[in-house]
Amino acid sequence: MFESAEIGHAIDKDTYDAEVPVLREALLEAQYELQQQARFPVIVLINGIEGAGKGETVKLLNEWMDPRLIQVETFDQQTDEELARPPAWRYWRRLPPKGRMGIFFGNWYSQMLQGRVHGNFKDPVLDQAIEGAERLERMLCDEGALIFKFWFHLSKQQMKARLKTLKDDPLHSWRLSPLDWQQSKTYDKFVRYGERVLRRTSRDYAPWYVVEGFDEHYRSLTVGRILLEGMQAALANKHRPVRQPHAAPLVSSLDNLGLLDSLDMSQSLDKDRYKEQLATEQARLAGLMRDKRMRKHALVAVFEGNDAAGKGGAIRRVAGALDPRQYRIVPIAAPTEEERAQPYLWRFWRHIPGRGMFTLFDRSWYGRVLVERVEGFCSEADWLRAYGEINDFEEQLTRAGVVLVKFWLAIDKDTQLQRFKEREQTAFKRFKITEDDWRNREKWDRYSDAVGDMVDRTSSEIAPWTLVEANDKRFARVKVLRTLNDALEAAFARD
Amino acid sequence: MFESAEIGHAIDKDTYDAEVPVLREALLEAQYELQQQARFPVIVLINGIEGAGKGETVKLLNEWMDPRLIQVETFDQQTDEELARPPAWRYWRRLPPKGRMGIFFGNWYSQMLQGRVHGNFKDPVLDQAIEGAERLERMLCDEGALIFKFWFHLSKQQMKARLKTLKDDPLHSWRLSPLDWQQSKTYDKFVRYGERVLRRTSRDYAPWYVVEGFDEHYRSLTVGRILLEGMQAALANKHRPVRQPHAAPLVSSLDNLGLLDSLDMSQSLDKDRYKEQLATEQARLAGLMRDKRMRKHALVAVFEGNDAAGKGGAIRRVAGALDPRQYRIVPIAAPTEEERAQPYLWRFWRHIPGRGMFTLFDRSWYGRVLVERVEGFCSEADWLRAYGEINDFEEQLTRAGVVLVKFWLAIDKDTQLQRFKEREQTAFKRFKITEDDWRNREKWDRYSDAVGDMVDRTSSEIAPWTLVEANDKRFARVKVLRTLNDALEAAFARD
Repeated sequence: MFESAEIGHAIDKDTYDAEVPVLREALLEAQYELQQQARFPVIVLINGIEGAGKGETVKLLNEWMDPRLIQVETFDQQTDEELARPPAWRYWRRLPPKGRMGIFFGNWYSQMLQGRVHGNFKDPVLDQAIEGAERLERMLCDEGALIFKFWFHLSKQQMKARLKTLKDDPLHSWRLSPLDWQQSKTYDKFVRYGERVLRRTSRDYAPWYVVEGFDEHYRSLTVGRILLEGMQAALANKHRPVRQPHAAPLVSSLDNLGLLDSLDMSQSLDKDRYKEQLATEQARLAGLMRDKRMRKHALVAVFEGNDAAGKGGAIRRVAGALDPRQYRIVPIAAPTEEERAQPYLWRFWRHIPGRGMFTLFDRSWYGRVLVERVEGFCSEADWLRAYGEINDFEEQLTRAGVVLVKFWLAIDKDTQLQRFKEREQTAFKRFKITEDDWRNREKWDRYSDAVGDMVDRTSSEIAPWTLVEANDKRFARVKVLRTLNDALEAAFARD
Repeated sequence: MFESAEIGHAIDKDTYDAEVPVLREALLEAQYELQQQARFPVIVLINGIEGAGKGETVKLLNEWMDPRLIQVETFDQQTDEELARPPAWRYWRRLPPKGRMGIFFGNWYSQMLQGRVHGNFKDPVLDQAIEGAERLERMLCDEGALIFKFWFHLSKQQMKARLKTLKDDPLHSWRLSPLDWQQSKTYDKFVRYGERVLRRTSRDYAPWYVVEGFDEHYRSLTVGRILLEGMQAALANKHRPVRQPHAAPLVSSLDNLGLLDSLDMSQSLDKDRYKEQLATEQARLAGLMRDKRMRKHALVAVFEGNDAAGKGGAIRRVAGALDPRQYRIVPIAAPTEEERAQPYLWRFWRHIPGRGMFTLFDRSWYGRVLVERVEGFCSEADWLRAYGEINDFEEQLTRAGVVLVKFWLAIDKDTQLQRFKEREQTAFKRFKITEDDWRNREKWDRYSDAVGDMVDRTSSEIAPWTLVEANDKRFARVKVLRTLNDALEAAFARD
């Protein structure tokens, strides 16, 4: 969930100073148009890590826009009046009317997260709160509201650096105070429960936007741009309210620094170490698959990656460790006629292994948010709702004991070019390179954006993505095997 | 939930014989059109009380339609293969493809209800299953599926009569057997959990249809008509799939026997007994409102009813028992400008009382599914989704300790006419009768249908409707007071 928000996004002062005036003017204009049309309210939810700039951003938005049309609502400790009524009452009474913007600083999410982190209640109550939030937001959207949900994020190191400057305020002891935050455990818990909350409440009509909060310029411009684009799209669409995907497009980072750029692509293994480690990991996998604790689990591995990143080779090294009766490799190509007559996920459900078994998906259900999105094979509404549906799907798998491991094999553009050329020159590899591959290459940036969004929206505590630096095939193959083994061991240890 | 399905609907053989051929032909035609368009699948879920005609109906549908285009799926005990995989896998593998109809006889609902009634798990697991069903169905509908959910119902007496003819089958011991059903407690539990399930999973895109199952003719024609109208509407709407309300309209009973017709409108109280009982119940209410256990609760009473049914008089008798500081009367008229700028439920949320307090709503949030529906003041999509939203709203109230009592004051058409005339002739009552009242009266039948749907879809174990026979004002007033008192006492007893 938070991968893209821990890679050090930053924007320099000159760029920032040049962009702000344009953004401000456009935001003001959108705000007046919102007031004039008075067709729907805008609700902005502010959540995330302490010190990630939540308060500063709210302050800034009030400076940038016309504060008379913004109501900032802070939900601190409940008042007597609020305590005497159902929990949602406090939010209902402060909803912004049509034509105005309400910024909810502290809201239903902060309440459920703080309660869970403090240990005031356990997962079932958290899940009930999550479900309540989902129903509330669906209703608000059905009534026309445009909801923006921002999660301001910091890595643990960034937060610690930030907190040094903050003093503890005893008046805020009811919530997580800066002192609480200084404990490593608090951060870990907050992020873990945060992932659960974001995974289950990010829906096409009200998605979460995770914003890296360390650099003030980057943070401010990102929030401003999301708000602006979302408002403009909603104002232009006269058919609201209808149940529809959110108006704001998913944003790729402003500074052109993508998740994949943060990888150290120079990692490699020499031949000897490769041989040794490959043998070790293969033996380990064979042993784990034969372990009697495996009877309670199934293993599913998803292989996605750039063209020519070496998925096939990695899959062969995994399969090579095992008895063919234990695994199945499912290559995903264009859907068959029978598959097209079914809901999207049907063709993956049919291949889910039984306990004790292992299925390797060579490409997978992520096709919808990768190739189908980029190539326009499905509507925007379809791929936008797919993130939520995939998270639901994977939750069902993992809840039933399936160990799910997802790989993105990443190579850089030069490496890909080199491999394409090799393929064209090697007779037995020529079938592996087609016109499509060259065409896809032209869309490199759009695929990179799609990968970033995919990882951000579907890498969660129950089924994280593993990004594999695959410029060196040997390094990649060993990392894949080791990750599978670690995942199985972790699952056995949890039993 | 089941009120309208316990009043003895029946259709005579001649009518049935005359209607079936027409219905059959239309169903066949719709079925072929479905196959030809091949745009979406139809999924029919069959649930309800043992002996209410589930199996017979499935058999009949196969006779009426082309069985080659119908797949009947029964989900009995899970197979080994199914047990080795996530629970939903068994349903996915049997989904009908686009252009075909799948009848799921036994399905996710039977599984969760049987498990809960058998005591295999408790409410939190039931709630998780409910949420899972909701997500599954939302996804299926987003993918274009047309889902019909039928609940075949019998009253306890009807069921007992029916079960005498059924023998116990030991092969079915994994589920509720006829022997189980013969226990009064099983029926009660099944209906109680059934209400919870229906309340929370009846959504505009996949509503429940409750069908009284005792009379074979009535049952068969009702199911056939709902299927036909739903399929026809969906086939005509070329814009599917989109997220939209269900295509089948809510149906009013085929035999023109409405819920309100089942009331004994002759009930009355003479003056002396009225005086005595009124004084008793008023004193009881005053006492209960002062009881210290009231500090944990709030009381909300909703008054709806026919024009001139005596809502005002009943409200005055309730208020007359109390200290004015304890209660507030909220008359609901057309929304103010401020209210129109907010989501529909906002103007009711603002009047929710704090603990220890009592709010009487003179008309209420049910306006959306009554006057707004009948007069066309909101779109069909709006009032269709309102049932689910109202159930969510009332669940939030009751979960927070609010005791919620809902009254429909019913008078018959003659009594209304008589009262209208009296009002016109009495000077100080003349302001109470307007052109609108006469106009509404012309829509009597459409209002009755709306009331029936409202009660069927929002009378639940947490907030049941009380139908008050109000031809005799004295009888009605005492019944209102007594119902309030009983509800408070029951809530205190549950603490």
